[in-house]
Amino acid sequence: MANPKNILFVMFDQLRWDYLSCYGHEHLHTPNIDRLASMGVRFNRAYIQSPICGSSRMSTYTGRYVHSHGATGNGVPLKVGEMTMGDHLRAAGMGCWLVGKTHMRADAEGMKRLGLEPDSLIGVRVAECGFDVFERDDGMLPEGPDGSYDPDGAKEYNKHLKAKGYESDNPWHDFANSGLDEDGNVLSGWFLKNSAFAANIDEPDSETPYLTGRGMDFIKQAQDPWCCHLSYIKPHWPYIVPEPYASMFGPEHIQPVNRSDAERQHAHPVFKAFMDTRVGQSFSRQEVRDAVIPAYMGLIKQSDDQMGRLFDWLEETGRMQDTMIVLTSDHGDFLGDHWMGEKTFFQDASTKVPLIIYDPSPEADATRGSVCDALVECIDLAPTFVDVAGADVPDHILEGESLLPILRGQTTETHRDFVMCEYDYSASPIADRLGVSVEDANIYMVATKRWKLIHCLGGYRPMLFDLENDPKELVDLGDSADHEDVISQMFDHLRNWATRNSQRQTMSKAQMTALRRGSDKGIVIGAYEEGDMSERATVKYRNRTAPHWSKRHGNPAGSKS
Amino acid sequence: MANPKNILFVMFDQLRWDYLSCYGHEHLHTPNIDRLASMGVRFNRAYIQSPICGSSRMSTYTGRYVHSHGATGNGVPLKVGEMTMGDHLRAAGMGCWLVGKTHMRADAEGMKRLGLEPDSLIGVRVAECGFDVFERDDGMLPEGPDGSYDPDGAKEYNKHLKAKGYESDNPWHDFANSGLDEDGNVLSGWFLKNSAFAANIDEPDSETPYLTGRGMDFIKQAQDPWCCHLSYIKPHWPYIVPEPYASMFGPEHIQPVNRSDAERQHAHPVFKAFMDTRVGQSFSRQEVRDAVIPAYMGLIKQSDDQMGRLFDWLEETGRMQDTMIVLTSDHGDFLGDHWMGEKTFFQDASTKVPLIIYDPSPEADATRGSVCDALVECIDLAPTFVDVAGADVPDHILEGESLLPILRGQTTETHRDFVMCEYDYSASPIADRLGVSVEDANIYMVATKRWKLIHCLGGYRPMLFDLENDPKELVDLGDSADHEDVISQMFDHLRNWATRNSQRQTMSKAQMTALRRGSDKGIVIGAYEEGDMSERATVKYRNRTAPHWSKRHGNPAGSKS
Repeated sequence: MANPKNILFVMFDQLRWDYLSCYGHEHLHTPNIDRLASMGVRFNRAYIQSPICGSSRMSTYTGRYVHSHGATGNGVPLKVGEMTMGDHLRAAGMGCWLVGKTHMRADAEGMKRLGLEPDSLIGVRVAECGFDVFERDDGMLPEGPDGSYDPDGAKEYNKHLKAKGYESDNPWHDFANSGLDEDGNVLSGWFLKNSAFAANIDEPDSETPYLTGRGMDFIKQAQDPWCCHLSYIKPHWPYIVPEPYASMFGPEHIQPVNRSDAERQHAHPVFKAFMDTRVGQSFSRQEVRDAVIPAYMGLIKQSDDQMGRLFDWLEETGRMQDTMIVLTSDHGDFLGDHWMGEKTFFQDASTKVPLIIYDPSPEADATRGSVCDALVECIDLAPTFVDVAGADVPDHILEGESLLPILRGQTTETHRDFVMCEYDYSASPIADRLGVSVEDANIYMVATKRWKLIHCLGGYRPMLFDLENDPKELVDLGDSADHEDVISQMFDHLRNWATRNSQRQTMSKAQMTALRRGSDKGIVIGAYEEGDMSERATVKYRNRTAPHWSKRHGNPAGSKS
Repeated sequence: MANPKNILFVMFDQLRWDYLSCYGHEHLHTPNIDRLASMGVRFNRAYIQSPICGSSRMSTYTGRYVHSHGATGNGVPLKVGEMTMGDHLRAAGMGCWLVGKTHMRADAEGMKRLGLEPDSLIGVRVAECGFDVFERDDGMLPEGPDGSYDPDGAKEYNKHLKAKGYESDNPWHDFANSGLDEDGNVLSGWFLKNSAFAANIDEPDSETPYLTGRGMDFIKQAQDPWCCHLSYIKPHWPYIVPEPYASMFGPEHIQPVNRSDAERQHAHPVFKAFMDTRVGQSFSRQEVRDAVIPAYMGLIKQSDDQMGRLFDWLEETGRMQDTMIVLTSDHGDFLGDHWMGEKTFFQDASTKVPLIIYDPSPEADATRGSVCDALVECIDLAPTFVDVAGADVPDHILEGESLLPILRGQTTETHRDFVMCEYDYSASPIADRLGVSVEDANIYMVATKRWKLIHCLGGYRPMLFDLENDPKELVDLGDSADHEDVISQMFDHLRNWATRNSQRQTMSKAQMTALRRGSDKGIVIGAYEEGDMSERATVKYRNRTAPHWSKRHGNPAGSKS
């Protein structure tokens, strides 16, 4: 099998699965991404492991469920010791580089406890979730009355803008993330109303073209083999895009909102609390959708154009022949569906992502342009990459599975019967409003191809959707007596998953199996006499002799002998 | 509250809960341990977290369930990054020292990955599960045809024996762990038949008196405050004890075996596979019990005498006034009950341990000599010790709870409704015999005061015992239609436990709660316009101004302006 030499791992942020024409969007034409789909496999049921940037990404990077790695929210550091795709790939002889966003927060306390110097090679890798950093730009550098949100982060792009003459102490905010009124007042892209304005920046200088160029800069100088995580900041909010994309879409291009009065009126109390947040209320207003969604579509259209630029360049430079290209997102965006904004809940708009994988190997020719209906999780990417790098997948650490057999047409399904997604809202004001403790502020989603169960800890009834008969997820069957058996079965899935052995990371499954043979090193359990042992095992016992203790040389005082 | 200055944390190995007179043994009088019970609180429902040395101890030392720390078996290293009582106690200003056994296996691979030098202070602590080592003796240094079991371990006691004139390349084996026939042939204590012989060693030189002396050596030189883990190797097998203890007990002193023909005939298939092991079959023979149990009782009687020596010395030196004493075991021993030998299953003989805590503080006067019926787990010890050291218990890391409120008479119960115990037999030949995969070779025990459920992964029916009406655990109700509701409720407990947030170790619960207030640092989610924000939050946005991008200085070539 001729594996690709390199991996270009493109991630967009908050790119909803159905906002690409290859996934069915009617008005948003994304011919370049569609072209990638025609060259590879488009996955139709790819789920992220948490509907929030940081936790979803930590699952992608570690190849492990949130319940396993513990970085349950954007502010929660990934603990020292968790291995990531970078660790596995470097061990397999493939570099692993970052260009863009990770949302990683380092476990500074843990690093200090173990004496890891932040500026050492190991320290930097631990702090950057295993990547070697070509450029990190986590985006979003606003400030408020309490000061700058992230004084140390996201410096590179700001430096770039300053060098290009964008004069401001924070050009990222004042130009890339803002519009402008006639008096030169910043119309912050952080306010949804201002999404209708064009961003105050020359389009080639905006975030997505900038990072595309940086990705190309990396590839130009990279030594083979490499994995490059080209990780875009957009189309994540602030929802504001420069011309010509700002004028490209209008309210007439917005897909109908997916919601019903019934789902709000009979909402599960936890789901209702999420609907009742400011962002849920905002996106329930048509004027907000009319302002935001055209800008969101513009950001995606711009992203697609940049993919065209990138793919053309890869063709020209020969990299298209030796590089696997993976394109995905860290989660979706409700955009008013289900009376919700943002993500942080479990309908497909939030938890399902686009996933397209192009494998240049001849073995993958048979699947080009195909659509795969398998249940896929974002934790499958790390094992896929390790597989591409030619190493054995460490299945005691990585909880996903390699997708290479699907890409090579050897199978059409993964081994799993259900996908998992989790959200920890213990740090959210929603938990206060519901009166839910830190321990109980966890939600689990279990989804088969047919059913989706959402289980909120703390004694709530579950939610249940019939994905076959109600693909829009508008009818919550969680209190339906007719579905008790289904609910019970979904809870069994949850329990089986939750009791998995996820922390035995120091011994492989093969090592555990090998131990079943036992050893002949003298630990003899349950043998009454020598005859109970094999001849070989006992020979040393029989041959040993010793004097009686009282006959020993130098019998000390105080001995009873 | 006047907390004790020091903690003497005594652990015996494989000391079954009911083999002490204070716990009801009829023929085995342990007046010294009983005296400790009369001075403190004796816990009647103390459960270990895994019925195997290493995993049980790693739970005790980390204060976390096996499902959380992942060291699921004796050979499975505790992964780098897991904090232990040593880390927590030193942070609270209390030293944490080892004298004796831990069964720790270091995560050498993880240490290498993080660049931790094995001989650095941090490296040694990581490798010794957080203890500073005064002396480590893990016991059991036999050899077989494949060589020595543990060429690097357990050296100190062997050195000691050699210095005392016990001439052999392995005096631990030839003297302490063996009897002798007339020709000077070693009668290995590893063979159960030889348990009837006296060990070939002067009693004061045997393991338990030796370690008692080493514990006293530690205390003599220790700086306050300290926690000393005095961790005995016995009465764990090899079951062989020197005179006078070897002759102290005979078959007439053995308690009746606790088993029934019915439990073997209708045994759950996994339980049956455990019964069918060599050790289960051996201990089902009366001659084995007759040879082994008197020696086991002798080892315990010797241990009790050593406790008398130790406690008297603590009185004389004044340490009894400022030192908390904790006495427990890492698991029990079936000794033929339930047709089983060893531990590794879930009846009380294996999973319940003696736990006695003496707190010298005046606040504890009210509970002296009392028996506590609370559901206690061995993971409660680490938080208890942190509490004694005067620090806040880090409840995002330690999963148990401090027992100080019980010791001080403020409550009689812990907060839990059930205890948990786990066993991973994926490295055992039993898994091969059952044809169980590494993923499915896990067993969970959930026990309330009334019921005990045993759940074997892999599609087996559960086992269920009614602890109130069948305290001997002889009637398995796991397939009883009358108990479906109870079983369902116990499975709910298991699911709730398994879905707990056990890996979010980098953020405390208080930190998560504090984040609910949000911040005013410029991340504005879901606000349509400035009016949606507080006056304070928006002031910086309003005051900012910027020029149009095309007006900037140094407009570069290629710009569309």
